[in-house]
Amino acid sequence: MTETRGARVVVIGGGFGGLETVSHLKHQPVHILLLDRKNHHTFQPLLYQVATAGLSPAEIAAPLRSIVSKQKNTEVLLTEVNGFDLARKVVKTADTEIEYDYLVVAAGARHSYFGNDQWEPLAPGLKTVEDALEIRRRVLLAFEDAERQAALHGHHSDINFVIVGGGPTGVELAGTISEVARTALARDFRTIDPKHTRVILVEAGPRVLAAFSEDLSASAERQLNKLGVEVRTKTMVTQVLPHEVHMGEVVLPSSVTLWAAGVAASPLGRALSQNVDRAGRVPVQPDLTIPDHPEVFVIGDLATIKNPDGKPIPGVAPAAMQMGRFVAKTISNDLEHRARTNFVYNDKGNLATIGRNAAVAQFPKFKLTGYPAWLAWLFIHILFLIGFRNRLVVMIEWAWSYLTYQRSARLITDEVGRLREQLRSPDSHLPEPPAVEVVEKRRA
Amino acid sequence: MTETRGARVVVIGGGFGGLETVSHLKHQPVHILLLDRKNHHTFQPLLYQVATAGLSPAEIAAPLRSIVSKQKNTEVLLTEVNGFDLARKVVKTADTEIEYDYLVVAAGARHSYFGNDQWEPLAPGLKTVEDALEIRRRVLLAFEDAERQAALHGHHSDINFVIVGGGPTGVELAGTISEVARTALARDFRTIDPKHTRVILVEAGPRVLAAFSEDLSASAERQLNKLGVEVRTKTMVTQVLPHEVHMGEVVLPSSVTLWAAGVAASPLGRALSQNVDRAGRVPVQPDLTIPDHPEVFVIGDLATIKNPDGKPIPGVAPAAMQMGRFVAKTISNDLEHRARTNFVYNDKGNLATIGRNAAVAQFPKFKLTGYPAWLAWLFIHILFLIGFRNRLVVMIEWAWSYLTYQRSARLITDEVGRLREQLRSPDSHLPEPPAVEVVEKRRA
Repeated sequence: MTETRGARVVVIGGGFGGLETVSHLKHQPVHILLLDRKNHHTFQPLLYQVATAGLSPAEIAAPLRSIVSKQKNTEVLLTEVNGFDLARKVVKTADTEIEYDYLVVAAGARHSYFGNDQWEPLAPGLKTVEDALEIRRRVLLAFEDAERQAALHGHHSDINFVIVGGGPTGVELAGTISEVARTALARDFRTIDPKHTRVILVEAGPRVLAAFSEDLSASAERQLNKLGVEVRTKTMVTQVLPHEVHMGEVVLPSSVTLWAAGVAASPLGRALSQNVDRAGRVPVQPDLTIPDHPEVFVIGDLATIKNPDGKPIPGVAPAAMQMGRFVAKTISNDLEHRARTNFVYNDKGNLATIGRNAAVAQFPKFKLTGYPAWLAWLFIHILFLIGFRNRLVVMIEWAWSYLTYQRSARLITDEVGRLREQLRSPDSHLPEPPAVEVVEKRRA
Repeated sequence: MTETRGARVVVIGGGFGGLETVSHLKHQPVHILLLDRKNHHTFQPLLYQVATAGLSPAEIAAPLRSIVSKQKNTEVLLTEVNGFDLARKVVKTADTEIEYDYLVVAAGARHSYFGNDQWEPLAPGLKTVEDALEIRRRVLLAFEDAERQAALHGHHSDINFVIVGGGPTGVELAGTISEVARTALARDFRTIDPKHTRVILVEAGPRVLAAFSEDLSASAERQLNKLGVEVRTKTMVTQVLPHEVHMGEVVLPSSVTLWAAGVAASPLGRALSQNVDRAGRVPVQPDLTIPDHPEVFVIGDLATIKNPDGKPIPGVAPAAMQMGRFVAKTISNDLEHRARTNFVYNDKGNLATIGRNAAVAQFPKFKLTGYPAWLAWLFIHILFLIGFRNRLVVMIEWAWSYLTYQRSARLITDEVGRLREQLRSPDSHLPEPPAVEVVEKRRA
């Protein structure tokens, strides 16, 4: 067993799992180094609110430094991890190696295009603040384009939003976009005819929200329809083109296509294990470590493990947080020379929001749908938001938009011009050099 | 005189001048078309708060559509104007021509690098929300870099912020960055030594805030020094390089260089007049029109005109707003066949903020400095913020950060990866094709 007095704990990833590990080691005699590519924790359950112009990034993201600012045994470093040397117990970054006694890898997941990565620019997913801002930009620009057509030519072509994937993210995006299109934006864009706005949710499986019971899936589909969303289950997307989504023979015109289908674990998984699963997740042992390395933990969306009852543990925030707490507990056990235990996921229930007054909630003892489920969702998500200020401001924003049907963050920011400048700029502050080369092109 | 019943008024630019024109024509029997490249009005006096992580973009920017949503005679179009055919009375955009009976050009200004445009990526200015986010990113990354050095190697090189230009923007940026570096960020970044953070304000002229009286300039300089800013007047910047600013023989190392010096009017000015001044501003007649075109008004930072007393009218928000109201009044006079009058700028006073409790205020009858000036500034800027929600949220944010020394929006969003994707993306929604080409480069 590692000598653990003043042990050096390196945590990779400031998501739900990583932060829980860190905070539950607060009173232990360890040195914690929290590494992340971003300087902020993103409260992913509310990202769709940023994507639909309801909230601003700063209201759902908190700087990692301020989160741990009171925890003296923890340091935050903004850096990208490239790999590991498990034998020498070091983490490799672009410019240095970082030693550890304990390694906790909580690097999370991105979305997967099932081998069709060329679809990504055409159908962005929703994992980061940048994703959310890009989706917001595309959604708002779709309406601006239609308004310009209508104003200049007296009519506009249909506005179709195609959301691929009927999981929680796809459902909340479809429901909210449809609701916003018929309320806030409908008022903003006077000459646009809401009848010409379609929101289509495409799901390959037999039902939306497959993680929920069948009756809740059915309820979710009804609630989606009420919000004006067309749900197409048992439908596989075969091709994504600019403004077109192919499903076998069927071709849907699409103003904006969004991707909420597959999940792909961080590439760091492959640096840790030869036998990752199809989603790139690392199979971990009952104590969440990898074989032969009791000092290396993998948690959250990057790990795959079954509960004692044989059920796979879902890639949800509560599971990641429970894993984080378990790892902190296990390291503490080591420190106090107590035996390790096995991780058991305690499923406290599952919530999915659909839109205004619309949601489903599945608890061990009971279920909720519609308004009560939505209230439960609202309450729990404000409760778990990190930072009192965020809770306060988000409550105000939500009360405001609930009463006025206004969305507070309907801004389109043109990042392209900005990027052009950045790529040209020799500014060494740029995040590690992107694998692109910029060539001035003389305009004909 | 133009036939004005149901006259078509085209307003270019949703800044202070354009919006005042629009809102004061609310009850006139005209059709108003408001054209802007952006979908939002930016409250420029508070942009520096976004650049210094105190506020979020949505808190100081309001969608143009929601601002005019209650004004039935007004339409907003998101489009870029390329030029005019004054003889045929049409505005030219990329995809169409737009006819007008009255044209109000309020396209504003960008910053000028005095012929050294290659400095722009090295020393961004502060005119748009995108500018502010880029400055925020660079300022925060400078501290992150130092923290990483300190954590991995035990020491970090100096953090130098060089701000070029001692006008209101340069002064508020310098003062706020210095204040934030010594309070909010100093706490976030434990291992950074604030003694190694320098903020240098460089001004070519003999004093900062030249628009104010000499004693107020002197007071501003003292207040800047109190906040830890080094002020260098009578100093001309001769060269800007990555992390270096040259002033003749003197070379300052610079982690982040910001540009708050010259102003260059929108290129649309040259499309309106042969004899624009050195800043590209259009000389206008006493009724703010251009010669031989009583139906074409130019206002705000794009216009240059002297007051009857011979004083040039400054490029400030109050002047632009008064011009906007005057144009609305003039068009109304035409409608009611009343004679036109001449514009007179009524200088109600001048305020500049420097930092926490630090500002200067010059009113016709009295002057303020320090805390009272700062309170006056605070009050007036919350008062003039567009949208009740913004006023409420900004008040909360300010109270919060005043009491806690926290900055609520300390987010670094990595736009490069996002932009790389966008440049690849065939998404037709993208703003005009950027003059760059992205080539995948195989890493050696």
